[in-house]
Amino acid sequence: MNDPSELSASEARRLIGRGELSPTELLEACISRIEAVNPQINAIVATDLKRARREAKIAENAVLAGNALPPLHGLPIGIKDLNATKGLRTTWGSKLFENHVPTEDDALVARLRAAGGIIVGKTNTPEFGSGTATDNLVYGPTRNPFDLERTSGGSSGGAAAALATNMLPLCQGGDTGGSLRNPATWCGVVGFRSTPGLVPQENRTLNYTHFNVQGPMARSVPDIALMMTGCVGNDNRDPMANPCNPQTFLKIKPANLKNVRVAWTEDFGGVAPLDDGIRGCFKRAIGTLANTFRSLDYHNPDFSGARDCFWTLRCVNYLASHKMRYEKHRDILSKNIIANVKAGEKMSLLDVSIAETQWRKIYRDFEAFFKDIDLLIVPGNATPAFRIEDGIPREINGKKMENYMDASLIRSALTLTGHPVLALPCGYDHLGLPFGVQLVGKRHGDLELLKISMALEAILSTNPDLKRAIPNL
Amino acid sequence: MNDPSELSASEARRLIGRGELSPTELLEACISRIEAVNPQINAIVATDLKRARREAKIAENAVLAGNALPPLHGLPIGIKDLNATKGLRTTWGSKLFENHVPTEDDALVARLRAAGGIIVGKTNTPEFGSGTATDNLVYGPTRNPFDLERTSGGSSGGAAAALATNMLPLCQGGDTGGSLRNPATWCGVVGFRSTPGLVPQENRTLNYTHFNVQGPMARSVPDIALMMTGCVGNDNRDPMANPCNPQTFLKIKPANLKNVRVAWTEDFGGVAPLDDGIRGCFKRAIGTLANTFRSLDYHNPDFSGARDCFWTLRCVNYLASHKMRYEKHRDILSKNIIANVKAGEKMSLLDVSIAETQWRKIYRDFEAFFKDIDLLIVPGNATPAFRIEDGIPREINGKKMENYMDASLIRSALTLTGHPVLALPCGYDHLGLPFGVQLVGKRHGDLELLKISMALEAILSTNPDLKRAIPNL
Repeated sequence: MNDPSELSASEARRLIGRGELSPTELLEACISRIEAVNPQINAIVATDLKRARREAKIAENAVLAGNALPPLHGLPIGIKDLNATKGLRTTWGSKLFENHVPTEDDALVARLRAAGGIIVGKTNTPEFGSGTATDNLVYGPTRNPFDLERTSGGSSGGAAAALATNMLPLCQGGDTGGSLRNPATWCGVVGFRSTPGLVPQENRTLNYTHFNVQGPMARSVPDIALMMTGCVGNDNRDPMANPCNPQTFLKIKPANLKNVRVAWTEDFGGVAPLDDGIRGCFKRAIGTLANTFRSLDYHNPDFSGARDCFWTLRCVNYLASHKMRYEKHRDILSKNIIANVKAGEKMSLLDVSIAETQWRKIYRDFEAFFKDIDLLIVPGNATPAFRIEDGIPREINGKKMENYMDASLIRSALTLTGHPVLALPCGYDHLGLPFGVQLVGKRHGDLELLKISMALEAILSTNPDLKRAIPNL
Repeated sequence: MNDPSELSASEARRLIGRGELSPTELLEACISRIEAVNPQINAIVATDLKRARREAKIAENAVLAGNALPPLHGLPIGIKDLNATKGLRTTWGSKLFENHVPTEDDALVARLRAAGGIIVGKTNTPEFGSGTATDNLVYGPTRNPFDLERTSGGSSGGAAAALATNMLPLCQGGDTGGSLRNPATWCGVVGFRSTPGLVPQENRTLNYTHFNVQGPMARSVPDIALMMTGCVGNDNRDPMANPCNPQTFLKIKPANLKNVRVAWTEDFGGVAPLDDGIRGCFKRAIGTLANTFRSLDYHNPDFSGARDCFWTLRCVNYLASHKMRYEKHRDILSKNIIANVKAGEKMSLLDVSIAETQWRKIYRDFEAFFKDIDLLIVPGNATPAFRIEDGIPREINGKKMENYMDASLIRSALTLTGHPVLALPCGYDHLGLPFGVQLVGKRHGDLELLKISMALEAILSTNPDLKRAIPNL
């Protein structure tokens, strides 16, 4: 057998179930890989190896005893450092919580444990998840495994880099403006932002702002589906919770793409900034898919109001989350947080009502747009992974970006619609860095989107130019 | 047989199904009643009798032909004048739409028609639904059938008065701060605000503001359950839509109240203004329920932030809906609308973020409050129905009310939680006007709440002091 850290989560789980791979063996392989690679990458920032080893041993004994095994039984998992883990340092990437050790697990962490997952450690993130570069004053930057001078993306950048380098087979992440998608495409892995409510969030800041969605990251679509069994659930503390049977995610088979009607757009008709090099990669990828689907048409949803809408509603969230911290501790808060709070302080209730109206229009228009299609394909990133020293993508095609959100509009516009989006690796960009696409499904059509993505991943994997990029570390 | 207009909807539907009552006969009885009573009350403000008669005839033929009949087959229904009805004048109670005749039905109207309902006419409402008194510049006031000098309540006041006087067996209404509940209790009928999303709303102003919920009004709980079969559904245009099988509402049986754990409060621990006379009525009613449930305890949820929270978030909605109208037409807009828009114009995005944070806290606390109970009982109104000339309840226990929302806090606080609330008649108040209670169920526990309400209604109906009040017209 190869090094178990190289196995997919699905394959590892199969072998564990058959007693051909012990959870301990798998965990030790991951720990070895973390020890070998993490010092260069800085993806995993805190671990509880003692507990992980103890749980792996218990998992091993459960196999030997012939017990019924839960879906993630014995699989090592990384948790983003924005999620509380009992007894394991959780900092939110902030100096304010530098030495914080939670006394309870977040509900999602608890669900993943209940599904059999073994929490190995915490993955790095920008402070409070604000940024497309994973970097913070507590732990410093997470480096891109394909070019150590570049960012792994963010905010789930630690997770993406840990997966790309086989340090862990599964990682949890979260996504507001694209934080499950941007690091996935920049590190050549898969991230899945599901329909809001499917993965309930008991501690959301605002009652009905669906911007933040948590979910799985992995190296393949089948592994994403497997991890969903530990993510979905019901929780009355989340008013958007949308119960679903986790078992349904175990039965997913690839879709027949000849039944799938597809639209594609590279930049929503010029609305989202897009680097010309990425445009070229994306169009070449679309070109290779010519006879793959029932139909494949260039078609632009109307996202003309998305930038301002997202920015304003995001400010409501930022003031609710960070205003008090900003008043007391602005000396140690990141620039991104300060910029958002300051912008929000200048706005009025009328601005909010205008943004809410735009949001409604975007939702309605996008639902209508989706009436005659099953899938929308969009680039996963507006630019190649940028240099860590730049902090944000400074310009696109020579045009200066006001802040990191501008270069994220290709993803954040889709946040507004609440449709599920899967970020799928798709070869390399013009700089030789990983490139990926966003696959957008029908709202509440999460299972169908996973089936389509699975079929498409299988096709891309047969194409040397479009298959998942593997770092050479 | 009695006059068919006096039948409950459920009984009328049973007789129609058996061929013992023809839809035409029922419709004509309602029309006669409308002609006799409506001139005094002004509940029904527009009708399409020609179409209604044609549809009743078709419904009659369907019975004779032995066709399968939908759940509301042949039942006359009133639609609130805030909902578009194809070919039937729809004004939103506003001079701005005084002569508006829609070319399409609202989705809810279409669902009610598809379920077999026969739309007879439109019921009166304050302009754009803003008010606890049904009165407007297009049609004038709807009078309370128990005292013609007093209001029928609002905003679904036309619906409540039409039901109380047997003009129609079923009416649709809508509720933001209590508009299905306040007129129901003041007119001695039943109104049901379900969990947001169960009755989808394709044309909501804001994407995720669940304040407005549309639903059924009737003279009894079984009739409410019956009408729900035509209200629930799925509609992707509503991001909060929460699909449910309409058939489940046909199978509801009364709950065994000995299994039901109940909390009661008359004013959320002094947070909601409450007239002392109403307080007395409510406490007497609670007193009679002493051995009815598994438990019945005085217990206050924390709604300390509800007033400001609701007012601010409501302003976001009002600016989104009415800002342009206010700019152009403030000379013909109602005082309530103008006051809300003006208040919103003075607020900041920070105010919104504070209100959103309060909303989240209220939701979380209320969910925790409900963990150990199945039902919360609260008065349906803070005051007796007030005089039409007063426009709003001017004072409560000698304390001046700033605006009509203050006297509505007993209902609007519950709007914030998103829990289902049924307004149930409960005898007469100290002035001899109808009194009622709000029965609050678990979130998404709509079916269970209807079962509990049905059992409680049956008990109250055996008590001469607490049974539904009937107007003497």
